Parts: sequence; C-alpha cells; structure tokens
Amino acid sequence: MSEKSPQVGIIMGSQSDWPTMKHAAETLEALGISYEKRIVSAHRTPQRLVEYATTARDRGLNIIIAGAGGAAHLPGMAAAMTPLPVFGVPIESKSLKGQDSLLSIVQMPGGVPVGTLAIGKAGAINAALLSGSVLALQDKNIAKALDNWRQKQTDAVAVEPIDTL
Amino acid sequence: MSEKSPQVGIIMGSQSDWPTMKHAAETLEALGISYEKRIVSAHRTPQRLVEYATTARDRGLNIIIAGAGGAAHLPGMAAAMTPLPVFGVPIESKSLKGQDSLLSIVQMPGGVPVGTLAIGKAGAINAALLSGSVLALQDKNIAKALDNWRQKQTDAVAVEPIDTL
Amino acid sequence: MSEKSPQVGIIMGSQSDWPTMKHAAETLEALGISYEKRIVSAHRTPQRLVEYATTARDRGLNIIIAGAGGAAHLPGMAAAMTPLPVFGVPIESKSLKGQDSLLSIVQMPGGVPVGTLAIGKAGAINAALLSGSVLALQDKNIAKALDNWRQKQTDAVAVEPIDTL
Amino acid sequence: MSEKSPQVGIIMGSQSDWPTMKHAAETLEALGISYEKRIVSAHRTPQRLVEYATTARDRGLNIIIAGAGGAAHLPGMAAAMTPLPVFGVPIESKSLKGQDSLLSIVQMPGGVPVGTLAIGKAGAINAALLSGSVLALQDKNIAKALDNWRQKQTDAVAVEPIDTL
Amino acid sequence: MSEKSPQVGIIMGSQSDWPTMKHAAETLEALGISYEKRIVSAHRTPQRLVEYATTARDRGLNIIIAGAGGAAHLPGMAAAMTPLPVFGVPIESKSLKGQDSLLSIVQMPGGVPVGTLAIGKAGAINAALLSGSVLALQDKNIAKALDNWRQKQTDAVAVEPIDTL
Amino acid sequence: MSEKSPQVGIIMGSQSDWPTMKHAAETLEALGISYEKRIVSAHRTPQRLVEYATTARDRGLNIIIAGAGGAAHLPGMAAAMTPLPVFGVPIESKSLKGQDSLLSIVQMPGGVPVGTLAIGKAGAINAALLSGSVLALQDKNIAKALDNWRQKQTDAVAVEPIDTL
Amino acid sequence: MSEKSPQVGIIMGSQSDWPTMKHAAETLEALGISYEKRIVSAHRTPQRLVEYATTARDRGLNIIIAGAGGAAHLPGMAAAMTPLPVFGVPIESKSLKGQDSLLSIVQMPGGVPVGTLAIGKAGAINAALLSGSVLALQDKNIAKALDNWRQKQTDAVAVEPIDTL
Amino acid sequence: MSEKSPQVGIIMGSQSDWPTMKHAAETLEALGISYEKRIVSAHRTPQRLVEYATTARDRGLNIIIAGAGGAAHLPGMAAAMTPLPVFGVPIESKSLKGQDSLLSIVQMPGGVPVGTLAIGKAGAINAALLSGSVLALQDKNIAKALDNWRQKQTDAVAVEPIDTL
Repeated sequence: MSEKSPQVGIIMGSQSDWPTMKHAAETLEALGISYEKRIVSAHRTPQRLVEYATTARDRGLNIIIAGAGGAAHLPGMAAAMTPLPVFGVPIESKSLKGQDSLLSIVQMPGGVPVGTLAIGKAGAINAALLSGSVLALQDKNIAKALDNWRQKQTDAVAVEPIDTL
Repeated sequence: MSEKSPQVGIIMGSQSDWPTMKHAAETLEALGISYEKRIVSAHRTPQRLVEYATTARDRGLNIIIAGAGGAAHLPGMAAAMTPLPVFGVPIESKSLKGQDSLLSIVQMPGGVPVGTLAIGKAGAINAALLSGSVLALQDKNIAKALDNWRQKQTDAVAVEPIDTL
Repeated sequence: MSEKSPQVGIIMGSQSDWPTMKHAAETLEALGISYEKRIVSAHRTPQRLVEYATTARDRGLNIIIAGAGGAAHLPGMAAAMTPLPVFGVPIESKSLKGQDSLLSIVQMPGGVPVGTLAIGKAGAINAALLSGSVLALQDKNIAKALDNWRQKQTDAVAVEPIDTL
Repeated sequence: MSEKSPQVGIIMGSQSDWPTMKHAAETLEALGISYEKRIVSAHRTPQRLVEYATTARDRGLNIIIAGAGGAAHLPGMAAAMTPLPVFGVPIESKSLKGQDSLLSIVQMPGGVPVGTLAIGKAGAINAALLSGSVLALQDKNIAKALDNWRQKQTDAVAVEPIDTL
Repeated sequence: MSEKSPQVGIIMGSQSDWPTMKHAAETLEALGISYEKRIVSAHRTPQRLVEYATTARDRGLNIIIAGAGGAAHLPGMAAAMTPLPVFGVPIESKSLKGQDSLLSIVQMPGGVPVGTLAIGKAGAINAALLSGSVLALQDKNIAKALDNWRQKQTDAVAVEPIDTL
Repeated sequence: MSEKSPQVGIIMGSQSDWPTMKHAAETLEALGISYEKRIVSAHRTPQRLVEYATTARDRGLNIIIAGAGGAAHLPGMAAAMTPLPVFGVPIESKSLKGQDSLLSIVQMPGGVPVGTLAIGKAGAINAALLSGSVLALQDKNIAKALDNWRQKQTDAVAVEPIDTL
Repeated sequence: MSEKSPQVGIIMGSQSDWPTMKHAAETLEALGISYEKRIVSAHRTPQRLVEYATTARDRGLNIIIAGAGGAAHLPGMAAAMTPLPVFGVPIESKSLKGQDSLLSIVQMPGGVPVGTLAIGKAGAINAALLSGSVLALQDKNIAKALDNWRQKQTDAVAVEPIDTL
Repeated sequence: MSEKSPQVGIIMGSQSDWPTMKHAAETLEALGISYEKRIVSAHRTPQRLVEYATTARDRGLNIIIAGAGGAAHLPGMAAAMTPLPVFGVPIESKSLKGQDSLLSIVQMPGGVPVGTLAIGKAGAINAALLSGSVLALQDKNIAKALDNWRQKQTDAVAVEPIDTL
C-alpha cells in the first residue's frame, strides 16, 4: 500500500473478494494514487460499515471503491452514508455469475448513486481508472499518469492477431 | 392499525411501496396480529434504519416484514442488524419488473438470512401469513386464526371455472 | 443428529441435494436445535410428501426446511399441507444454475408462503439461521446461541484482506 | 362441455387461468374430444389435487391438461400422481410474464414428465391439439378431425400480407 | 435397438446430441417400446427432415422424440409436417446452457404443438416416459411396464440422506 | 410494391408480423430496391416454405428477409434451403417480448447462417438497409441511394434536444 | 441551461432520450452545476462523437454524462476518446426494457471505464448527483449544495405511509 | 491468408478473440475468399477503428466481419462508419457467457445495421458463410464453392448416431 494519506478507500464484503479487488489496488498503484484496503461486510459488520462510510470524508478520503457479490449491499449502503463518489464492482457470484451482484449494485433508486463497473476483474481495474479520471481533475500528476497509462494501453494493441497454443 | 403493542414491524423503502405492502397489513389484521408500519429507506434514511433495526427486539417486535424495490437493500440490512426473523417482499420495479428486487433480497450471503416471498402483492400477503405461522408456534389464537384463514381459502376455490366478461 | 425430539424437519428432493442441505443441518447443530432429515421427493414419492407435511405439526415439528432443484415443487407443496413455517432452499441445478429452482420456490401465489433463501450452500445455512431466529422467540437458549453465533461471525471478519495463493 | 364421458381433464390453478385455458376447451370441442374442466389448486386445495390425480385413470380420463402460473406446481404434481400423459400450460404471470411459470413446469426431474407447451393462449390451444394427436392414435374420427383442422389452418394462410388499421 | 417395427422415432440434430438422447433410447428399451434412432438435421439436411416427418405416420411410427440445441428447429419443423405427437428435448448448448434450445422448442405458435421436456438428460428420459404414457393408453403391456418403472422409482428413494465422499 | 423483378423477398410467418415487416418494405422502396412480400409460415405452411426457399435463387431473388416471432423457425429454415443471404428479424412476442424470437433466430449452428437484426421495427428497417449494403456492392444506383439515405439520416440529427409534450 | 462555462456535458443518442435525460439536467441545475446538452448519436453521427469526445477536456468540461438505449455504444465510445470521467445512463428500451442498454454500457472491458447508473429516470438523476460528488471534491459550493440536497431528501421521507387514491 | 487483394476484413477487439475468429478465417479460405485480419479495439484504439472503417470501401473491401465480447461496440461502430455490410460475431464473455456481447451487437437502432451471428465459434463460421453468400451474388466461383461446401456438409451427416467414448 502507498505511504501517502489514502485518497481512495477500497472496501470489499469478504476476504474472498480480494482476488478480484486487488486489481483495483494494483491499478491505483500504477497511477500513483494512494489508497487503503479494508474488509467491510455490510451484513456481517454493519457497524463497521456505518463508521467507515460516515467518517470517510473527514478522514480525507476522496473516493470509495466497493466490491461485493450476490445481494451486494455494500456499495449502495456506503453511498447512502457518505457524500463521496462511490464506485461499485460486482463480484462474480457462484450460481448466477454476477448477474445478482450487478443488479443489486446498479439499480439504485434516484437520490443515492453508485457508479457501477463491469462484473469481475475488468470492473475492478476500471473502478481504479475511473477514480484516476476523477482525481486527475485536480491533480496534474495523476492526469499525466492516466494519459500515459492510456497511451501505453493503445500502443500495446497489436495490428494483427497471432496463433497461440 | 391494531391497538396491541406491535408484534410485527412492516417497513418499506418508500411511500410508493405502500400499495403493495398494505396487503401485508390487511392480512395481519385478518389474523389478529398487531403491527406497526414505517417508511424506512435504507438509502435515504440510513440512520433511521440503523435505529429501527437495532432496537426492534428490545421494543418488543417479534418479526420484521420489509418491502423494497430495485437495488432492494432494506430487508438484508435490517437482517444484518437484528436477530429477529426478517421476511422480504420484492416490490415490482418499473423496468425490470422486480427481477432486480428479487435477486437483491434473496441472494443474501451465508450468515444473514432474509426469508423472501414472491414479487409484489402475493409476496406481501404471504409475508403476513408466514409471520402468522411463526407467531402461531407460541400463540393458540393466532394458530386458530391461521387455520381458519387457510380453511376459508380452501373452501373458496370453486369446482369449475366460469366464463366472465 | 440431536437426541431431542426434532424441532425442525429438513427435507430434500433427492440424495443429491444432501451436500447442499447438510449445511443446514450443521448450522442447526451449532445452534443447539434438534432436527430430523428426510428425503421426500414431491415427484417420486408424493404420498410420502402428503404424509410428512400433513402430520408435521402433530408430530411436534416447529419448522420445515425444504431444499429442491429444477422444477422445485417440494417447498411449496409442503407449505400447502402444513400450517408450519416452511423455508425453501433452491438447489443449484445443472443447466440453469438454480434460476429455475429459485423461481419455482419463491413465486408462490398469495395464500401459501414459502420463505425462500439464496441458491445453494448460503441458502441452506441461512434456512437454519432463520429457523434459529424463529425458535429464539420462545427459547432463550437458542436466542443466546444465535446471538453468540452472530457475534462470532462479526468478530471473524478481518480488518484487511490478505494475499493468498 | 361435451356429453360423452370425458377423455381429457382440463385443470387449472385458479379461476383467473380460465380466460387462457378456455382456448384448450374450445380446441378440444373443435376436434370432437370430450373433456371436463376443473379448478384444482395445488396450493390451496392439495387434497383435491391428490384425489383428482390419483383417480384420473380409473375414472376413464386419457389425458390431463394442466394450466398454472408463477410457481406453477399443478402440472408436475399431477404428473407425480398419475400414469396418464400430462400436458402443462404456463400461464402468463404478472411480473415475470410466464418465465417463472414456464421453468416451474418444464424443468421436471428425470422420472416424472410434463409435456410443456408455450406460455399463454398458444400453449392452451396446443395442449388440446397435442391431446388430439395422442387420441388420434386410437380413434380414426379424431385423426380425421385433426387432419381437417390442420388442413384448414394451412389453407387459411394468405399469400400476401395486407395493410390493416 | 428393439426388433419390433418401431413405435417411436428418436431424431436429433447432430451426432453430438446422442450422449443426451441415448437416455431416451435406454428408457424406451426399459419399457419394452420399439424405436428407431436417426440423425436428422433441420438445417444441414432439410430434405431428410421433410421426408422423415411427412412419411412418419405411414411408416407406422406413433410418436416422434426430437432433440436439438441452440436455435433448435427440429422438433417444431417435424411437428409442422406430421400429425403425430412430437416431444421435444432441449439439448444443453455451450454458451447459453440450453436457454436458447428451450425457448426455440417450447414457444411454438398456436396450431403446431411440441410437448417440451426439461433441458438435457432429464428431458430425454422424460420424453421416453411420456411416450410410454401415451402408448400405454392402447397397450396394456406398456401400461404395466410403466407402472412397474414408476413403482421401482418410488421404492428406490431412501428415507434418509447419507454422507458420501 | 415495385415493378421490377424482385431482388429481395420479404417473408413473414403471419399476417400479424406485417405491421413490423412493412418497415422493411418501405425502406427497400426508399432505396429503390424491388421486392416481393409473402406470408410463409414455417409451421402452418411448411410446403410453401420448402418451395419458396428452394426456388428463390432460380427465380432471381438476391436476398431473403424473414421475420418471425416466438419459436421463430422461418429465417433459419429458409437459410437451410437456399444459398442466398438470409437476414432475420425477430418479431416482438407477447409474453417474452422477442427474447424467444431473437434466440430462435440468431443461435444457428455452424454451417447455416442467418444475419440477425434487432427485435422489432428497428430490425425490419435494418434488414432492408443491410440488403441495400449487399446489393450496393454490384449496383451503383443502390450504392448512391444508400449513401444519400445515410447522409440524410446524419443530417437529421439535431444538435440539441428540445422539450416536447 | 446555466450561464457559466459548462462543467458537465450531457449527451444522448437521440431526441427520444431527452425525457429521461432532462432529469440529469434538472438535478445539475438544482446543485448549481453548469452544463451543456447535446444529441450525439454514436451510430448516426459518429464524426460528431469523435469531435465531441476528443475535444471535451480542452473545452473545459469536467465530466460527461451519456445516455443511450439498446445497443448503447455512446457512453463507452465517449470514454474511449476522453480521459474525463464518463457516467452512463441506460435508457429503457422498448422490447427488452433496458436490459440491453444496461449490459451494453456496464460490461466495458478493463481499460476503459464507464460509471454506470440505473436504467431510466433514476439513473439520470443519479448521474447528476454522482457528478456533484465528483465536483464537490474541489468546489465547496457544490459540496454544500449536495449536502443540502441530501439532507432535504432525508428530511422528506415520511415516518408512516399513507393511503392514497 | 490469401494473396488476392482482400475482399473481407476480419476485425476483432482483442488478441483473445482470435481463437474464435480464426474459424471465420479458415472458412473464408475454404471458400476461396481473400481476407485480411486485424485487431481493432473500439475502446483501446478508437482512432484505428475510425481509420479502418472509413477507408474500408475505398481500400476495396466488400464486407467487414467484426468479433467482440462484453460491451461489444466494434461491429456497431464499424457499421456506423462504412456503407459496407457488417457482420457481427458475439464472443463468449467470461461471466455472462456472451449474453452481453449478443445484445450489444444485435440491438442496433434503426438506421445502422449489423447482421449478427450466433455466439462463439458457430457465429464465426457463419459470418464467413454469410459473406460467401453475399459475394456469390457476383462471383460464380464463390457461388460454386459455397454450393460444394453446403453439399459436403449435408453429405457428412450420418444416418444413425453411434456410441462414442
């Protein structure tokens, strides 16, 4: 984890979400964005969630990235208790493959937004990149890092596909 | 509403859920079960939710019936903060017709249960009847009322369908 | 299985449901709740189902937990023939991954409720916990066991995720 | 209804299914097949269902057509209790438009078949036609009536579409 | 395959459907019903389909069982060209797991019925059992075989589940 | 309908599909493409389908546009019997809103393609435009007409939305 | 529209999206956030989209809100061509009720994020509120306006539901 | 790849799509149709997409086959920028198995068509065959090759299924 005071809080409902959510962490690091990572279960530790969300702004966080699966209440409940932007990552669930996670996160009622990303690893990476886009509005270093990241991504696309094993 | 201290708390995310949830209220009344009804929005009034759920048992409630639509977090978050049985009613949502509500309520992780009923009016009625079944375990009057209700229901089924306009 | 007269009857449509439903049994044991477990196939042994459901209350059962997959009729048909609370566990099916099981269990018509839990193992655990919530209303030992169970669950949530292999 | 001893029993879960199921009745009449029609609710009148299904063969019925909606257990439970062919008609449900009805009827486990037709009116008509195909195997009049019905249907298809209001 | 003139024709869209459809064949054999099995691809051999379906009745077949996957047109097109009862088996497809197969088979328009069974192996077994039910109407041996089969099935259901590896 | 020998054959399963499919006809006319329109029901007039599809190329048609709903077999069966390009239009069905139509048309097995367009009116328009793209490869007038059509479409997009009643 | 240089660009694929997207505009106004609104069709005006997206940052925009329905490519393509945060609003489509719109917007590959909101009006309101959360990070007036907006929203939730006509 | 100036351009969003899309290439080769293959990511290389699509006709291409997964924007955006026929292949995605890819490709608005094939390998093969059908309209060699291909396919269908390991 970076040493600066964290700009982004990555929270997730369970240890088992970390293999997905660590892609958010790695992407933030690549952009030079400081973060903290916490397990905050909306259902098993509701008090921890209340405390985390209601104090997030005062503790200096700028953005919350929340990953959860199944009846995924963590992103929406965090959004209910903080004015910070909350980005939600639907974790792929066992039976329904994240369809439940996606709908539970994205279908928020008017009044309490969660910016929702794709199911799984792609969503975790993108939650970090979207955080980068937001922070770049006020931080030229992050803006430059994000531009570089995107340019490298573009440059890395080969012209022609190759056969592989 | 009945005058006895409420045995069941009916909560819902919004005034717009009441046309569905009132069927729960009416069914409880038919069984002679006392209840209270409250709007408790997980997203717009999270503090009210915390207070409602964490004090429910001490205030004497036996059961919570929670109706919500879309990213329906109310039943699951209530269940996270009370040891009482929580029964969830998925409200039919505008675009996805309650498929989002259903998955957001029923797909709870192991550890925090919500007994989920059908989408819409049928679910509201059944949440009340299921509450009746639970309370009947310790209250002979409710047991008798429930038996009567079920018998009447059975008796009301005609033998042959008739043409109607 | 416990030695007390069973408070909960766990029924399932097939031997193949047991790897899921045994999680309900284990959770009931952890709460000190007595139970029996039976294979009762709505389709292959309908008479056994009629007998089981119609005599359940008189035999002293308080709750029925029913697990079934595919066109899962067991929970709903049990609920049709007993005034006891019935909690349904949708078993993950091969092709449709439990979407059929879920809808077949939860979409009961108004009049005959089944409190439905999540698809698979989480649902089986939660059917037991919900049974615990119900029985806790009249049994202080179970109430205490349930409170302990929930507290341990909360305490077991680590603060920060760790990398694992 | 025809005066001959009924060859087909049309059953449905509720009076509200009749506007759909009457299309089965009308089609049977057009084929000269005798039938009876009954409301048999799997959930509200389970005893009636047991009696109906277990005595169907001895009463001389050849086929059961069963229509039901939502958690549609009627066709499958009838099939569990009779060796007669059972044809299921998923009734269009309010929220899920018959997707629940379809899956609850068609996804029967190996061992107890329900021949399932389309959701709604088309399914009701087709349940009658399929009954005609079955009965035509042993009844030349029905075979002839069915051939005529199909020929008329073919002849009625216009060559070119026309504009209508 | 049995030596009698075939009563049932099992057709399937591809060799790859045989591992599913052979369960229909084995079940027919268990009931003493004669059958033939053919690969008839609606899309790759449409002329073979026309010939098979239009001559089926005259060749003495009583029932057609048709299995197909994806845009599964075989059962419905066979039904369009024969007055015999057609039972359809949705084969589990690779990406959509048979949801496409199921809808392509079951959602036939009013006028041309396909009695549809469950996705995959269960559906194949049940197509054979349903054929048995139909043939039992005019053949006491098959009726007896079917009754025996069902009784054995019922007897084989253990009372209590057991732990397995 | 245009007076030239038809280049495109528009077929549909039923008169009721015409309100959708006429948008294909109107768009072809706007591009100066000659066409014929026919009701060809795969299920009710299978012989007409065989004749239509097998003779289409020899009769001078270049393309077949086929619209169908529910278990929509018309486009795929036409494609099975002609080497011409076949474009399929899923008609919005009553209960499943065209989801069944779409899957029944698009999920063709490898070997027999149907180029599938969107559900409903948009798909009908686009089937005509796609036909225009194909014919434009060998007809400069159609190429020019298509370019004009697209340019007009682009020009018609207002810069800013306006409030309307 | 406000008079300040626009901070947010609201774009939509068609005039027909405006009845939904105007809720984004009204909510931005309520928060004192300046914006512009444009029709930019990814499919009908792709050049306009390229120009809009590639110049957005240099023109001083901070955020893009993009609404689109069906195969909704506008939000993702805008995100591909600007480093600004892009928030996507799935418009409810006719046949599939926005399920297509939602998946087309949210399931972006790793590398190019779109923060996706709920289908329809709720999503449009929330895209504006999320924009407010982002801009509040660097603008105390917007932060205060957002806090007020949220407080009013909380205060407006009645305690008890009332019967309405 | 063939040596003639390419008639068909196969494009795909990523190297990872090639194992699917190579089936299109192999099928084109079998028909003697020249082609080129390129990775063109709508999201990571939008400028490459603009250049590829806008110059495709002038470079002599006749058809574009575009494969993409998830929020699959490549086929539709190519179709927005070329008058050539565009055929889309939905790549099977990880979580949603290509349901997102399919809807993102097929549900194009009226005005910009993409002829969509089945999810995965079958779709890739069929995109090539459909291209063959289109090119056969003006090229007798391709017409003959396609007829041969189809005849061989028909001849290869065995009459009876065989047991395999």
